[in-house]
Amino acid sequence: MEAKSPSESRTILTDLVLPSETNPLNNLFGGELLARMDRAASIAARRHSRRIVVTASVNHVAFNKAIPLGSVVTVEAVVSRAFKSSMEIYIDVWVEDRESGRRSKANEAIYTFVAVDETGTPIQIPALEPESELEKQRYEAALRRKQLSLVLAGKMKPKEATELKALFED
Amino acid sequence: MEAKSPSESRTILTDLVLPSETNPLNNLFGGELLARMDRAASIAARRHSRRIVVTASVNHVAFNKAIPLGSVVTVEAVVSRAFKSSMEIYIDVWVEDRESGRRSKANEAIYTFVAVDETGTPIQIPALEPESELEKQRYEAALRRKQLSLVLAGKMKPKEATELKALFED
Amino acid sequence: MEAKSPSESRTILTDLVLPSETNPLNNLFGGELLARMDRAASIAARRHSRRIVVTASVNHVAFNKAIPLGSVVTVEAVVSRAFKSSMEIYIDVWVEDRESGRRSKANEAIYTFVAVDETGTPIQIPALEPESELEKQRYEAALRRKQLSLVLAGKMKPKEATELKALFED
Amino acid sequence: MEAKSPSESRTILTDLVLPSETNPLNNLFGGELLARMDRAASIAARRHSRRIVVTASVNHVAFNKAIPLGSVVTVEAVVSRAFKSSMEIYIDVWVEDRESGRRSKANEAIYTFVAVDETGTPIQIPALEPESELEKQRYEAALRRKQLSLVLAGKMKPKEATELKALFED
Amino acid sequence: MEAKSPSESRTILTDLVLPSETNPLNNLFGGELLARMDRAASIAARRHSRRIVVTASVNHVAFNKAIPLGSVVTVEAVVSRAFKSSMEIYIDVWVEDRESGRRSKANEAIYTFVAVDETGTPIQIPALEPESELEKQRYEAALRRKQLSLVLAGKMKPKEATELKALFED
Amino acid sequence: MEAKSPSESRTILTDLVLPSETNPLNNLFGGELLARMDRAASIAARRHSRRIVVTASVNHVAFNKAIPLGSVVTVEAVVSRAFKSSMEIYIDVWVEDRESGRRSKANEAIYTFVAVDETGTPIQIPALEPESELEKQRYEAALRRKQLSLVLAGKMKPKEATELKALFED
Repeated sequence: MEAKSPSESRTILTDLVLPSETNPLNNLFGGELLARMDRAASIAARRHSRRIVVTASVNHVAFNKAIPLGSVVTVEAVVSRAFKSSMEIYIDVWVEDRESGRRSKANEAIYTFVAVDETGTPIQIPALEPESELEKQRYEAALRRKQLSLVLAGKMKPKEATELKALFED
Repeated sequence: MEAKSPSESRTILTDLVLPSETNPLNNLFGGELLARMDRAASIAARRHSRRIVVTASVNHVAFNKAIPLGSVVTVEAVVSRAFKSSMEIYIDVWVEDRESGRRSKANEAIYTFVAVDETGTPIQIPALEPESELEKQRYEAALRRKQLSLVLAGKMKPKEATELKALFED
Repeated sequence: MEAKSPSESRTILTDLVLPSETNPLNNLFGGELLARMDRAASIAARRHSRRIVVTASVNHVAFNKAIPLGSVVTVEAVVSRAFKSSMEIYIDVWVEDRESGRRSKANEAIYTFVAVDETGTPIQIPALEPESELEKQRYEAALRRKQLSLVLAGKMKPKEATELKALFED
Repeated sequence: MEAKSPSESRTILTDLVLPSETNPLNNLFGGELLARMDRAASIAARRHSRRIVVTASVNHVAFNKAIPLGSVVTVEAVVSRAFKSSMEIYIDVWVEDRESGRRSKANEAIYTFVAVDETGTPIQIPALEPESELEKQRYEAALRRKQLSLVLAGKMKPKEATELKALFED
Repeated sequence: MEAKSPSESRTILTDLVLPSETNPLNNLFGGELLARMDRAASIAARRHSRRIVVTASVNHVAFNKAIPLGSVVTVEAVVSRAFKSSMEIYIDVWVEDRESGRRSKANEAIYTFVAVDETGTPIQIPALEPESELEKQRYEAALRRKQLSLVLAGKMKPKEATELKALFED
Repeated sequence: MEAKSPSESRTILTDLVLPSETNPLNNLFGGELLARMDRAASIAARRHSRRIVVTASVNHVAFNKAIPLGSVVTVEAVVSRAFKSSMEIYIDVWVEDRESGRRSKANEAIYTFVAVDETGTPIQIPALEPESELEKQRYEAALRRKQLSLVLAGKMKPKEATELKALFED
């Protein structure tokens, strides 16, 4: 199986914030944004693997910036690293000011998807070859995140997580 | 402000998995489950604080178990620790077999909400007093998770995260 | 088939009132509440019977209390009596004031469901054994309601409805 | 205020049964049909009163006939009697066979709506003058139903419900 | 196959404008109206053909009149001409003022549907016999529109479109 | 007001076809695609004008290609010409085969939007300067389409539509 570049999976979902998706402060519900990011990420995972894909996990997501009713929101998802049958998807969320047209970063999130066959069994996928500087950084960091995920799931002992452990040492 | 017990915020959202919420394997979309958990968690946060609440972050969430079309899904959300204006909400998701009636754990997730006033400014909330053994464990762990969150956001240096650092040492 | 207690079917659906579910006075649409009650009741019926269940009828429902946008609404459904293949489900709806946290009763409703097999044919279900005082009262009243329903459907003559007839006599 | 005829409020809502509205037997959910009937009835009530209207109650509704996915469903709502500020709406539901085009009755239902001003206070509405034989029958029966409704709500003693009491006597 | 009259396919879909269907000026989204018209038109096409039908094209649609939140909108669809396996559906959209009850025309639109068998292959349908003066005018105009459609799709040379060409000559 | 290039308004909305959006042949409903195109086009119009925008008209749209359940659909909208306060938006719809990853054109459509102020009054917008060969062709053709639209609306006499008339002459 030939390795693929991130650009082959890049997925853009630009849409409005509608009244039925807002909280009492008239901002986009956190849960709605999580659902949109999941849809965009699943398309990116499918473009990389050309398989049925299912959400395996969502990394820590911070909602730093309220997204008001009527905003244009752009969710951009791209595969940042492929493992045996799982893929890390990096998601950038942008929000756009109507008058100035200025785009600002609203969120980042990281989802993991697994490629499966028709019976739901994991199946091998192509490797990812990062190209730009940012893609390379994200590719490297993906391994640390995978270790953290295994530690949090109790499937790896913290002291075996060499990449991660380094973070906490002087 | 008087401290509250977890039982005062416990929120149960039992609902069906409908056809419009399923992926090509006929299982509940990850994104839909994230949105339901966000709604239940926001109600728990509101019951604890009696304020407007907004999603601040979602911790790592793993989707270990597929939830098929037609399942009964129970999302149970409860405040696990209150800080100054933010609350950690612990969410347990159960799925129920129609024939045997047996409930099994499908997911756990942890969301953080912030209580705000009408202008969106964070506002002080009551403390939480855990009661059961499980509530006490989750209360303790919440501090480590807060540190991890601050580290990941670059707002705390890893070596200052004393609670967390201990995890990675022999 | 062993009799079951009401607690085995009790179903709680707590959720918010969203903007897309409100009428021009910004209160929850009657029709939306009817649909939520139907979903909760169908889960209660399924928990009692462990079968596919379909709505057979809805008793008189009064909407005495407006439920404003942004409210937390709790729909609690429980089997109140089981007949051969049909079940009466009693539904209590509570609404919660955000500031005081006080819950008040918004509605009561009674739905009837029938348990069926894969072809839609009615199928026998377990009996119900009421436990609390309230459960016993509702169990007794269910027979009168069944008679009223048969009378209204023209399947029983009013004067044969002995339980019901008593109501209208001195 | 001039009396109106039923034809001035007659409302027809013809629509498809979509996949997201069906139960595990692939038939329309009872709750979805209740919601559609509420929307059609609210338009009929508004056409009669030219006011804001809110659902006051739903009479006994029986679901005798399953409505399969893909069906064309016609909900026809018309005011059957007007009281001081409340209206009884009679609803007929028809389902249509695609191949033969034959329409058959799927349901009947009766909703009560109240006309209100901008503050939610009940407000007077025009009388209804029935024209056809069927309209006259339904107009007469509406009074009995109103008495039953008052009895069930505990607002009228059964023995004072003269119209209703007659039903249960030899 | 016997010819049918327009009245056999006439379809009325009366419904409210809900908050989740409005744009920042609180008027019905153009896209939502297009979707409602498509549903009503597909039912009309099905009533004429008693077959599975799929949207083939939408003619030029102008949105001359804003339709505010809370309006009652009536979409009336009727087959205006039947060709071999395709049908032209003429759609009139009316909006109703709540206080005066006055109906005014909001839009007209023309959709084309094709009748197909279970495999998606076009299949022959009955002819249409217009009755009223308006029905006859629309029947005649349908041929010009079909030519225009073929010209725009590059399937007919403009100068062969005799009906259409006449329009542009002195 | 400075002229803008098409790339400043280009909007991409990539999303899945969900079960609730499909017809009896399990393909995307025409009406759903019309609604998605309207949302993408409205964002493009807003990006060009930085104003509130409302749908003014939809040109002839042909649905030549069925889009099956589960497909990835990409709607790409871009301003093709700006007039005084109205803009023509050209929309290309692509569908993607899951296994081969091959994209094929499913539809083209042309919408017109008008930029308005808070009261709904049309307001002046920047001109558009086409760059690529395709952009230039579409820019030229937009004038002919505007004339056709005026003719169809009865606001221009066919013989005055010089650009259009040429089409029908040898």
